Amino acid sequence: MDTSNQLHERISAVAKMAAFNNWLGLEVLTVKPGEVTLRLEWREELGQYSGFLHAAIIGGLIDTACGFAAGTLSGNVLASQFSVRCLRPATGEHFTVLGRVVKPGRQQIFAAAELYSHRQGESSLVAVGDALLVPSSDNKNRP
Amino acid sequence: MDTSNQLHERISAVAKMAAFNNWLGLEVLTVKPGEVTLRLEWREELGQYSGFLHAAIIGGLIDTACGFAAGTLSGNVLASQFSVRCLRPATGEHFTVLGRVVKPGRQQIFAAAELYSHRQGESSLVAVGDALLVPSSDNKNRP
Amino acid sequence: MDTSNQLHERISAVAKMAAFNNWLGLEVLTVKPGEVTLRLEWREELGQYSGFLHAAIIGGLIDTACGFAAGTLSGNVLASQFSVRCLRPATGEHFTVLGRVVKPGRQQIFAAAELYSHRQGESSLVAVGDALLVPSSDNKNRP
Amino acid sequence: MDTSNQLHERISAVAKMAAFNNWLGLEVLTVKPGEVTLRLEWREELGQYSGFLHAAIIGGLIDTACGFAAGTLSGNVLASQFSVRCLRPATGEHFTVLGRVVKPGRQQIFAAAELYSHRQGESSLVAVGDALLVPSSDNKNRP
Repeated sequence: MDTSNQLHERISAVAKMAAFNNWLGLEVLTVKPGEVTLRLEWREELGQYSGFLHAAIIGGLIDTACGFAAGTLSGNVLASQFSVRCLRPATGEHFTVLGRVVKPGRQQIFAAAELYSHRQGESSLVAVGDALLVPSSDNKNRP
Repeated sequence: MDTSNQLHERISAVAKMAAFNNWLGLEVLTVKPGEVTLRLEWREELGQYSGFLHAAIIGGLIDTACGFAAGTLSGNVLASQFSVRCLRPATGEHFTVLGRVVKPGRQQIFAAAELYSHRQGESSLVAVGDALLVPSSDNKNRP
Repeated sequence: MDTSNQLHERISAVAKMAAFNNWLGLEVLTVKPGEVTLRLEWREELGQYSGFLHAAIIGGLIDTACGFAAGTLSGNVLASQFSVRCLRPATGEHFTVLGRVVKPGRQQIFAAAELYSHRQGESSLVAVGDALLVPSSDNKNRP
Repeated sequence: MDTSNQLHERISAVAKMAAFNNWLGLEVLTVKPGEVTLRLEWREELGQYSGFLHAAIIGGLIDTACGFAAGTLSGNVLASQFSVRCLRPATGEHFTVLGRVVKPGRQQIFAAAELYSHRQGESSLVAVGDALLVPSSDNKNRP
């Protein structure tokens, strides 16, 4: 069983293995069994045509938070599907996303996530979503 | 009414307005009323931990193709929600995504998209998804 | 502004207007602004091939709870889309579904719902889902 | 390998095992590997408050068509999740739903469905949806 520190180190290490997450500058804030919080700083490069956070980044944060939350319980996972509901224009100085496991399982893990924008000390729920994840056991034998 | 060339120019111009799309290097291949095709070259920076295309990019391509397809019929749009189904690991030399409007409307546009990977002359359907889009006219009066 | 009793009466009246809900025997347990709870008794006729609650009923409860929750804030609504995640086999003596508005709006209302099964005094979360609803004002002029 | 007739008989038999489908009067029109068409007659009891087909029935038809399409390839299945997009008010004399497998698999099957309404010889696409299905492990102990 991972201790809390080991769990945080393991998830942070997975985050760093993903080249895209490194480009994003995704930071793992908190990790506990079945739940993670991630943080992302806003920068111009992450915007869509109106200057809001691009849907790719919104979806990526939702999917990644769900995947990391699942990963605390079951090793590496891959998303079979994910859904994103864009509640408000996503603008802010930085963003946090809370991912949590809704239902664990050996073959399928259901997770959900909430994305918050933060500006001048105030926070707002800008998107919610969910993902269905499967353990990536098939990867074990890949080169 | 836009001519075919004007439509291609208008959608390509919207693509260039999004800072993230420029970073991606997203190319608008074809545009006709209610349908677009986009192209993305693979590069390491777009990968997740296994080296597959990151879910953020998969979702971003699905969402963008849906949005551009809707945009051919109704001006700029914003996604209210989008969903992605990851059928196979997304690996390839380059990717194309076909977006098309399933049901147009004044207040809501339903669109769907298919993401293909291409390698050594062979292509494979790696993800499908859909989006519900609303015209972003409300943004006009925002500061 | 509706009082609490008026709100309960209005939503219960809407529930009775739907022929299918009457057949189901759907009961409106609690109503407050942005949130409702509904109850359904199990009976054989509601089952799929394994004897679990049929997906039609699961989805119908999720959609109806979302719609009624939205209806407490904005009059009658129609779902543009809804999604259902089936966490566990839905078996029980009766079921309750909690619907709540996640984000209200004039043109679009985001809602979510949780479906619980109950047996021998114990309850279990069997499904979760969400819906995107639009006010059905267009219906006013229909025959 | 099932012959075409055996496949139709097997799926029709599964349809009759579901008490709710019998109440609906769901008819299996066509069956081939990976694809089915089902038919439902409209009657008052299936309506919501405006007299349109109730979302429960729309979702149930989408889910059932996806499940039966998957079932042609892999024995009985259960839906892990399903999504429904309601394109137009669902009114008509009868309805048909076409379900097809998008991506087969041992552990997960992706399927999609299209729901058509029919009136006075004209048909209209009223809803589309998708489902992610898993083989029902209960089958292991079945003959």
